[in-house]
Amino acid sequence: MAEKRYLMTPGPTPVPPEVLAALAQPIVHHRGPDFRPIYRQCLDRLKEVYRTENEVLLLTASGTAGLESGIANLCSPGDRIVVVSAGYFGERWAGIATAYGCEVEHLRYEWGETPTADDLDERLTAIGGASAVFVTQSETSTGVVADVRAMAATAKDAGALVAVDAISSLGAVPCETDAWGLDVVVTGSQKALMSPPGLAMVSVSDAAWEARAQARCPRFYFDWERTRVAQAKLDAAFTPAVSIVVGLNVALGLLLEKGLEAAFDEHVRLGRACREGVKAMGLELFSPDDDSSAVVTTVRVPEQVDGERLLLDLRDRFGITFAPGQGPLKGKVFRIGHIGYFDVFDITTALAAVELALAEAGADIERGVAVTRALETYEHAPA
Amino acid sequence: MAEKRYLMTPGPTPVPPEVLAALAQPIVHHRGPDFRPIYRQCLDRLKEVYRTENEVLLLTASGTAGLESGIANLCSPGDRIVVVSAGYFGERWAGIATAYGCEVEHLRYEWGETPTADDLDERLTAIGGASAVFVTQSETSTGVVADVRAMAATAKDAGALVAVDAISSLGAVPCETDAWGLDVVVTGSQKALMSPPGLAMVSVSDAAWEARAQARCPRFYFDWERTRVAQAKLDAAFTPAVSIVVGLNVALGLLLEKGLEAAFDEHVRLGRACREGVKAMGLELFSPDDDSSAVVTTVRVPEQVDGERLLLDLRDRFGITFAPGQGPLKGKVFRIGHIGYFDVFDITTALAAVELALAEAGADIERGVAVTRALETYEHAPA
Repeated sequence: MAEKRYLMTPGPTPVPPEVLAALAQPIVHHRGPDFRPIYRQCLDRLKEVYRTENEVLLLTASGTAGLESGIANLCSPGDRIVVVSAGYFGERWAGIATAYGCEVEHLRYEWGETPTADDLDERLTAIGGASAVFVTQSETSTGVVADVRAMAATAKDAGALVAVDAISSLGAVPCETDAWGLDVVVTGSQKALMSPPGLAMVSVSDAAWEARAQARCPRFYFDWERTRVAQAKLDAAFTPAVSIVVGLNVALGLLLEKGLEAAFDEHVRLGRACREGVKAMGLELFSPDDDSSAVVTTVRVPEQVDGERLLLDLRDRFGITFAPGQGPLKGKVFRIGHIGYFDVFDITTALAAVELALAEAGADIERGVAVTRALETYEHAPA
Repeated sequence: MAEKRYLMTPGPTPVPPEVLAALAQPIVHHRGPDFRPIYRQCLDRLKEVYRTENEVLLLTASGTAGLESGIANLCSPGDRIVVVSAGYFGERWAGIATAYGCEVEHLRYEWGETPTADDLDERLTAIGGASAVFVTQSETSTGVVADVRAMAATAKDAGALVAVDAISSLGAVPCETDAWGLDVVVTGSQKALMSPPGLAMVSVSDAAWEARAQARCPRFYFDWERTRVAQAKLDAAFTPAVSIVVGLNVALGLLLEKGLEAAFDEHVRLGRACREGVKAMGLELFSPDDDSSAVVTTVRVPEQVDGERLLLDLRDRFGITFAPGQGPLKGKVFRIGHIGYFDVFDITTALAAVELALAEAGADIERGVAVTRALETYEHAPA
């Protein structure tokens, strides 16, 4: 008898059966009439999810490549830029920018802290401005969702472009590309967009296009202009991952049919249910205990428990995959993703399994309350 | 009633149903035990198909990104390199190298010509050597398959590294990575490897690793070392396109079960059958009329026929997609791909449809002979 599997990581995330079925369709040629209508619809839907009139460029690559395209198209070697980081993915912005020879002003927080616009303002003032600011909306390694709206306003006031890593946040929490004046927003197919990994998307504002024209970092595959020119003709600069585009188009249709606001609301409620359940069994949250935590709930591993062992047990015995801690958090936390194709029974399954595994590992856990608390919280959460 | 579709382009190519079914499996986490055995098998099978002991790196991206990784990891700005080109994809090597600031010595042929080791030798002598030579095994835009074994030997004699674009050739025609001393071999998932587009693979020799350590072109996502270190732990530097890896693993299993030599032989026979059928109806070949033409048969569009119209008709009326001419060949040729998941009845279908469409377009075509000639050629071809 096949064991059921539960993918509860903040990326890749579970993919709805309609999307999986679309992936199994025969391959079509990316320059032919079998693909073009799907491609057009997918690009249009992306703009809707991004809430932008800017072009959203589709790259066949994972999210990091979308971030790299931001550095390569906005910067020249020696440019002074600001990177705001508070975890693994903020560090990635810095790593890429350093590889490209930028002078990185690093506004660095402890992992788990929440970056603020005030700190950014102070840093920009202290250094006399920067050409661009690179921020992370949802720091998937810690569970912190930062106020990129406020940070973008601060960057704009200082005359800097703002580029946002929205890889695990777009479609899960509000990200108003145009209303907030976000010059570059990067996301990936495998998070709240409920599709397999393999595609990165990048929106580019007029100001970012102007910066690109001056930027001297070398780029070919990641060059925005090549992709823009091709997309304008419903062509692709390079053979795209057609199956994943076909799947993504189905997933975006599901998301927009439900409605973005409904999706944001659902993510808030799932986050609340998860946090309340975690606390009810006596565990400690690492991610913030407020409604910003709508992407991933990060839980401290109890002192006497081996965090890596716990996750292997959960997977081997119950078929459940959570994400481990990264970097300095390795072994100290585990992360329950709840973005995309999730409902409250996924949360109760996660909680029930955590409760059982921890109890058996000898942790001091309150039994029999987490699931009910989660359901009550979900049901009675103010919408 | 759904219309049948025939994908007869040299990439993306048709994907076997077993591979399509694998794509529809629920997504698994790339760092978990559900993925690792598949990943290991896939990496091992790639080495077998490459015929190499070198590491074969897996990148989530299309083939061009694999080429770009070759430039970015082997070169520094200002390096003198040789690019051998005789079509669209040879020009791509040159375009990437130029974008990265290399001094490109361009050994450029007319589209449709076949590069030779003698010309390369002459050029290398004339310029006093180069750090690396970039060649294309199968120039998909023209149908020419070059003798990269001889060119590699020439490059080695001159002390240069050799990097090969084997995107449409690996798995279709012999490419002996180790025996021929190929330092870098790039391929893609969507050609003879019978999988959806989305993955590039790059083999790297010891000499290429040494060159990488000195190369100063900026790189992050494409940095070979990041991927090597991750793969050594059966990890991935960046979230890979897990569904396509799962599909590729199935496809590689099918290819190796059949046997590489059998696959090469089959491709030669399909190429022969296609050429003889094309000639039998009175059409002119653009690609060479010899057994090197085992990847794609390029056919001249008869004078009085509109080549673009012809391909649209074939697609709209018969569901058949061929590839058009690129660059200077636009409208002048069409290309019948026969790599990967093809058999002789795909060839006869292609020929029958071409015959019918051209006859109706008023071309002077010999009716009723092409299919039989193709079948006879296929059956009696010396193995």
